[in-house]
Amino acid sequence: MVKKLTPMSEDFNQWYTEIVQSADLADYSPVKGTMVIKPYGYALWENIQAYLDKRFKETGHQNAYFPMFIPKSFIEKEAEHVEGFSPELATVTHAGGKELEEPLIVRPTSETIINYMFSKWISSHRDLPMLINQWSNVVRWEMRTRLFLRTSEFLWQEGHTAHATEDEAREESLKMLDIYEEFARDIAAVSVVKGTKSEMEKFAGATTTYSIEAMMNDLKALQAGTSHELGQNFSKAFDIKFSDENNKLQHPFQTSWGVSTRLVGMIIMAHGDDKGLKLPPELAPHQVVIVPIIPNEDERSRVLNAVNKLIESLDNVRVFIDDRPEVSPGFKFNEWEQKGVPIRIEVGPKDIDNGSVLIYRRDDESKNQYPFEGIDKVVDKTLNDIQKNLLITSENTVKSNTYHVDSYDDLIETLNDKKGFVSCFWDENKEDEIKVKEKTSATLRCYPINNKEIEKSVNSKENDGNFAIFSKAY
Amino acid sequence: MVKKLTPMSEDFNQWYTEIVQSADLADYSPVKGTMVIKPYGYALWENIQAYLDKRFKETGHQNAYFPMFIPKSFIEKEAEHVEGFSPELATVTHAGGKELEEPLIVRPTSETIINYMFSKWISSHRDLPMLINQWSNVVRWEMRTRLFLRTSEFLWQEGHTAHATEDEAREESLKMLDIYEEFARDIAAVSVVKGTKSEMEKFAGATTTYSIEAMMNDLKALQAGTSHELGQNFSKAFDIKFSDENNKLQHPFQTSWGVSTRLVGMIIMAHGDDKGLKLPPELAPHQVVIVPIIPNEDERSRVLNAVNKLIESLDNVRVFIDDRPEVSPGFKFNEWEQKGVPIRIEVGPKDIDNGSVLIYRRDDESKNQYPFEGIDKVVDKTLNDIQKNLLITSENTVKSNTYHVDSYDDLIETLNDKKGFVSCFWDENKEDEIKVKEKTSATLRCYPINNKEIEKSVNSKENDGNFAIFSKAY
Repeated sequence: MVKKLTPMSEDFNQWYTEIVQSADLADYSPVKGTMVIKPYGYALWENIQAYLDKRFKETGHQNAYFPMFIPKSFIEKEAEHVEGFSPELATVTHAGGKELEEPLIVRPTSETIINYMFSKWISSHRDLPMLINQWSNVVRWEMRTRLFLRTSEFLWQEGHTAHATEDEAREESLKMLDIYEEFARDIAAVSVVKGTKSEMEKFAGATTTYSIEAMMNDLKALQAGTSHELGQNFSKAFDIKFSDENNKLQHPFQTSWGVSTRLVGMIIMAHGDDKGLKLPPELAPHQVVIVPIIPNEDERSRVLNAVNKLIESLDNVRVFIDDRPEVSPGFKFNEWEQKGVPIRIEVGPKDIDNGSVLIYRRDDESKNQYPFEGIDKVVDKTLNDIQKNLLITSENTVKSNTYHVDSYDDLIETLNDKKGFVSCFWDENKEDEIKVKEKTSATLRCYPINNKEIEKSVNSKENDGNFAIFSKAY
Repeated sequence: MVKKLTPMSEDFNQWYTEIVQSADLADYSPVKGTMVIKPYGYALWENIQAYLDKRFKETGHQNAYFPMFIPKSFIEKEAEHVEGFSPELATVTHAGGKELEEPLIVRPTSETIINYMFSKWISSHRDLPMLINQWSNVVRWEMRTRLFLRTSEFLWQEGHTAHATEDEAREESLKMLDIYEEFARDIAAVSVVKGTKSEMEKFAGATTTYSIEAMMNDLKALQAGTSHELGQNFSKAFDIKFSDENNKLQHPFQTSWGVSTRLVGMIIMAHGDDKGLKLPPELAPHQVVIVPIIPNEDERSRVLNAVNKLIESLDNVRVFIDDRPEVSPGFKFNEWEQKGVPIRIEVGPKDIDNGSVLIYRRDDESKNQYPFEGIDKVVDKTLNDIQKNLLITSENTVKSNTYHVDSYDDLIETLNDKKGFVSCFWDENKEDEIKVKEKTSATLRCYPINNKEIEKSVNSKENDGNFAIFSKAY
């Protein structure tokens, strides 16, 4: 039998750990803190990659690949950067049977090595903007790990760009933040809040960090992607210079931005329920699973013929036929529900007699018969409906679980009493931010930008400072 | 001016080093033995990946991702494997600020970690065949490195499969070898010899290694891809067991197979000439470069309008418009010749007056005017012709530079006197194989399989042993 999951409401973390393994997304590896991404989970990641890679290229970025071993001295060149990453570094000390003269760091992120190369590649304003992206693995040694969300090695993309002016760099970092938001909304069907990080939470080496913050089904926040303005911090540290149009040497302004396999965790936790995953059709490895119902051997060829016709008419859809003889239809139904396939189609002798098929929607668990004729249009429409419905549900989760407070005491109380996001007007202030964390374990997720909907809903008298969102987070 | 290359005939190695950098394929990195793959080189790799990934999936394989850190004890489980790879390993000894209890090896290949996972995933004959592929980086510490051909870190794909019987494993490893051959022939336009490796040259841990061997333009061989039968070596070492249809526990038979960014080196060296790269249209990042010829500002809009029309009619082709104002058309011609773009189209006022454009073919350096009307068909046909022509040239290079010998003395003499492949009938014999290498620096590349064309051409009296090919190699 398909393993029953611990209900979310009982123990969300346990539910998460179980579904990741039970749905064949990932497995623990024998190396502490690392994970194996299984084919079903990797297919989800490939679909995420395909969309983002296309968008990066459409916006003028080119992929490249840089060495994963970084000389220790490089990491040390930017003061905040080394301070931020030191505790998480993995170090290669021996190679080829010898001790290395200088230890090599396994990249936790590639600003240093990429900017070293930029210093060789950039000399004129004609070389700018330089717009590079890399798909790769990175290593950040973590003590408390969780599959997809926090592992010592993970897969990601990291964009690195250089621009002639600070304005262009800002425009770039906000443009990439917009692409992350667009991906979350239109493809992952997850409503996110886009905003600026506080000084305390920003990337080590950035002048400004932006992020998208999503709400999971346990009402905690997940930082799902970040985009950084790096100012001239790295271009000065690595002595990147270009001659401007007046032949004057200048340091370029830079950005970096990234999302990772953590997005798989977001999709699991934003849409899943007690029965398992609910995958958005845009990303689902199988958009439709067909389960042939064969009550006896006499019916086999008639059912399989109907299934084949069905497949032919669904040639624009990612279809999987589950024709395993060794397990029952009921087993298959449970398994594909757990694996979150958006649509299940059942085809049996009775359906064939009626000229129809049964369509089960994973999102609202509805079952309906549809005529075989024109089924391709029904499937297309249903996939669209599911995609929309998942986003609406996600938006409603954020709306129903965001509270506004007008005082520090209310902030603490609400963060302790309620789950979800708590908004307030906040004067950037590190000491108070630490205090809130100590008292509630919540953090300042971001200062929302261009998020009229949230701000409009707030009818506040106290609006000193900046509109901010606090929440407990992953 | 575009940098002039050292001619191939003068110094092939120097030519290679220069073209890799001059054509913006790759750059040296500050970490000894590693390289940076620049956007133009990476785009070539992406096109290689796209084709192979599609073929792997069509043949039932699924992608997954395994940790790159492997416990030292894992590598040591298969005796030949550890012996083969020990000199090349890079070791992480410290992570998260502490010394690790067990050092971690950065994967040189993933048989050990993947088979450890297979031992958890495989229990029944119903789990077989298990057909997994991974796209990743690997590390093999090299002393003598060369861009794309031999670097300490490189990108590759590694397939890992498990089967119920030895026959099925053999069929799989030969099927993947066929896909590599098909890729080389149909996509990279490189003629390869498919064959079995000698005992001496096989993969550390395999029972049989197959390879494809290509001939470069300096007439040396390049091993371009390998496929291994692993027998039960790893399934026994990692205790992978399945219950067969009679409920008896068995160790599966396994394969692994891989190609790497070395293929980029193959494409450079198999097709290039003194002017630079010649990229096969199937893989070229830009299949067509359009150079607008604008003699004066009055003509600008007329020329650019014609260029835009041209682009519209070539919407199935990867087109790049080089409209840089700061360099001359002549500079652009040289640059794109060096970068190996298959077709250059020049559009100037005279062409527009004549209702035609000029098409330059990189492969045979021919220039022809064609009417603007119907240019899409001309471009399609020309790209096909170039693809075919490159393959024919590659086939002719192999034919004209393969010699057959009937005695050991002739083998030594021919390998010392001639460049190219030397075939003979050879009794598998390690001592003699070592002697040949000492006396000629050539190695036994493979025992060709299914290569009637080569064998047919040999009219030999002495045919004891197996038909073999020796050559100097990269």
